[in-house]
Amino acid sequence: MEAGAVGDDRDLDRIAAFTDGVMAVAITLLVLNIDVPRLPSGVDEAELRSELVDLLPSLGAYALSFALVGRYWVIHHRLFGTLRSFDGLLMALNLVFLALIALVPFSTELSDRYSEHPIAAAAFAATIGLAGLVHWLMAAHSLRSGHAHDRRRHVTEHAASTANLALTLVFFASIPLAFIDPLISQLMWTATIVVRLGR
Amino acid sequence: MEAGAVGDDRDLDRIAAFTDGVMAVAITLLVLNIDVPRLPSGVDEAELRSELVDLLPSLGAYALSFALVGRYWVIHHRLFGTLRSFDGLLMALNLVFLALIALVPFSTELSDRYSEHPIAAAAFAATIGLAGLVHWLMAAHSLRSGHAHDRRRHVTEHAASTANLALTLVFFASIPLAFIDPLISQLMWTATIVVRLGR
Amino acid sequence: MEAGAVGDDRDLDRIAAFTDGVMAVAITLLVLNIDVPRLPSGVDEAELRSELVDLLPSLGAYALSFALVGRYWVIHHRLFGTLRSFDGLLMALNLVFLALIALVPFSTELSDRYSEHPIAAAAFAATIGLAGLVHWLMAAHSLRSGHAHDRRRHVTEHAASTANLALTLVFFASIPLAFIDPLISQLMWTATIVVRLGR
Amino acid sequence: MEAGAVGDDRDLDRIAAFTDGVMAVAITLLVLNIDVPRLPSGVDEAELRSELVDLLPSLGAYALSFALVGRYWVIHHRLFGTLRSFDGLLMALNLVFLALIALVPFSTELSDRYSEHPIAAAAFAATIGLAGLVHWLMAAHSLRSGHAHDRRRHVTEHAASTANLALTLVFFASIPLAFIDPLISQLMWTATIVVRLGR
Repeated sequence: MEAGAVGDDRDLDRIAAFTDGVMAVAITLLVLNIDVPRLPSGVDEAELRSELVDLLPSLGAYALSFALVGRYWVIHHRLFGTLRSFDGLLMALNLVFLALIALVPFSTELSDRYSEHPIAAAAFAATIGLAGLVHWLMAAHSLRSGHAHDRRRHVTEHAASTANLALTLVFFASIPLAFIDPLISQLMWTATIVVRLGR
Repeated sequence: MEAGAVGDDRDLDRIAAFTDGVMAVAITLLVLNIDVPRLPSGVDEAELRSELVDLLPSLGAYALSFALVGRYWVIHHRLFGTLRSFDGLLMALNLVFLALIALVPFSTELSDRYSEHPIAAAAFAATIGLAGLVHWLMAAHSLRSGHAHDRRRHVTEHAASTANLALTLVFFASIPLAFIDPLISQLMWTATIVVRLGR
Repeated sequence: MEAGAVGDDRDLDRIAAFTDGVMAVAITLLVLNIDVPRLPSGVDEAELRSELVDLLPSLGAYALSFALVGRYWVIHHRLFGTLRSFDGLLMALNLVFLALIALVPFSTELSDRYSEHPIAAAAFAATIGLAGLVHWLMAAHSLRSGHAHDRRRHVTEHAASTANLALTLVFFASIPLAFIDPLISQLMWTATIVVRLGR
Repeated sequence: MEAGAVGDDRDLDRIAAFTDGVMAVAITLLVLNIDVPRLPSGVDEAELRSELVDLLPSLGAYALSFALVGRYWVIHHRLFGTLRSFDGLLMALNLVFLALIALVPFSTELSDRYSEHPIAAAAFAATIGLAGLVHWLMAAHSLRSGHAHDRRRHVTEHAASTANLALTLVFFASIPLAFIDPLISQLMWTATIVVRLGR
């Protein structure tokens, strides 16, 4: 596609399908972070129960990342629903967005395994924050380049508004705070889900 | 999407596609639970055969979970076929449903590896039972909020009926029974497949 | 869906999409069988080269299984293109077919790692042969129950013909022959690809 | 499908969907190459930070392969958008293309783990180069066999032009150069992204 050229509805459907595929795989791979404990055969019930209780933080990390990727899927889906065309830059931004989403299983495992380490929390926050920033750039570029349907323009405008950078800013703000205590960052991330999931 | 706002057919198609993607990945990841044995090279045929026989319970666990996720796919597919709109709550419930489905490979591996442990059987039953409960809530909410096509309303009503909670109740009932003997739970689960797959 | 009830085109599209998803994941997971060697850092080039040469049989197993799953995708796709309706039995058969396809990464790894063991070759042949048999049953049932479009009926008839059981029969025949020498089976499997891929 | 027979739009949509599925899974599996370090509990922050710095080359390899598979997705998507029919040879070539794309996670891990070894760089370059060559053959065959829409014929012609072999040639040229220094190859690969992504 030449720069500036626009694709049609069928193209948009296929880009959306590929995006959905990557996000569906990434969100499902999150489960690989929760390792079934490997105990010697004949282990007693109390020990297995205690090992499973130790997995609860990993389950929490799974739930948080699932909610965040799910939320990005919702806003991506809403943005794409407003488009009638796209260009090479939008395609490139979409690939960068997907590369960040596909990194989430890694970042989740890192911040879960080293949950008391600021650097691990910072890496997780950077992955999510950057994904939000790139999505916002997609919305802003779509709006500026006239890729939005006129009758859905208000949705694109909403996606490209500074208000919509709030999630991103919370994640970026949590990076320096992780170096005071990673728990602060984790509480901030959880708060974004409690307040906004599914909107 | 603002709370209460409704999406159109194209939106529904994309939600269904994302859901199908997650369920397709989760159902295929089940195979990762069946580990190819690692024996020293030059192992004799009898030993390999005996190792493969030891894998049969894992193969059974694979078949059971495949059938259960497959069954959820069938009922989800049937429910979505009745919808003409959706809202933020339905989207959130759908994500919670998917998060539970994506956990099934973990729960399967856990209950297979520790098949004699009540707590492992309880975790598996809770995963499947909760997924069924959330699906039922989706059906009930769709019905109450008028998201169903009028001419398909009887299908939505069926999905939201107490009769349709039967599978969920069997799985919840199997949780306390696992603490008498996990085998009782496993027989109950298998019974749900023999009686109902594909209906 | 009540037994005997039929679904419409939109239903068929979603079943095809779910099937495509499972097959796409299964075919891509085949690569996990080819393990990158773990050598100490500072290993010399000749040793790495020799380790990579040792991977060639795994690469061959990958190519064979990829071609076989790809072939099943082609014939499944062709059969589904002839349908205008389906029923509960067809859905159940399709899930059994998918459960066998999703097992192929396991069977491939098994028969590749124990390539000199008859039992491993037999397990691989049984997986592929059973998948072919179930597919043939789907075609036969579709034809008998009138699920095929009239103008595409000859394609369904072709899929349900005894001639179309040839691939299945070759794989079943290779099971006893594996106990003479697994190499005979491997040659038979490869022959099915050379003769038929993409037809 | 008989050789030479042509499929219709619905068939093309399903082939595109399967292709998208395989590419989406392969591109997301790339993340499995970036292993979260396993350090003893109680490790200090400086050591974890140093381990994460050591991961940066793997992150670079991830970004490069993501961009390359993403680029192949873009050109495949563009080629398929020009087709109105296909035949058995095109289907077979598409499967070979997908088998090469699905190998990319393996090749990426190999060339990343042994980044100073010419043979590993050569294997990576061969995988990407062959995928490009097979794609070019698909374009050339589509053009020669009249599978392209007339009004989109110039796009197919562009895909089948010698100019479009440039990426492939760079990768093939990097194979002998890897035996002088793998770094030269890595710089050539990176250059292809900087110059062409999203066009």
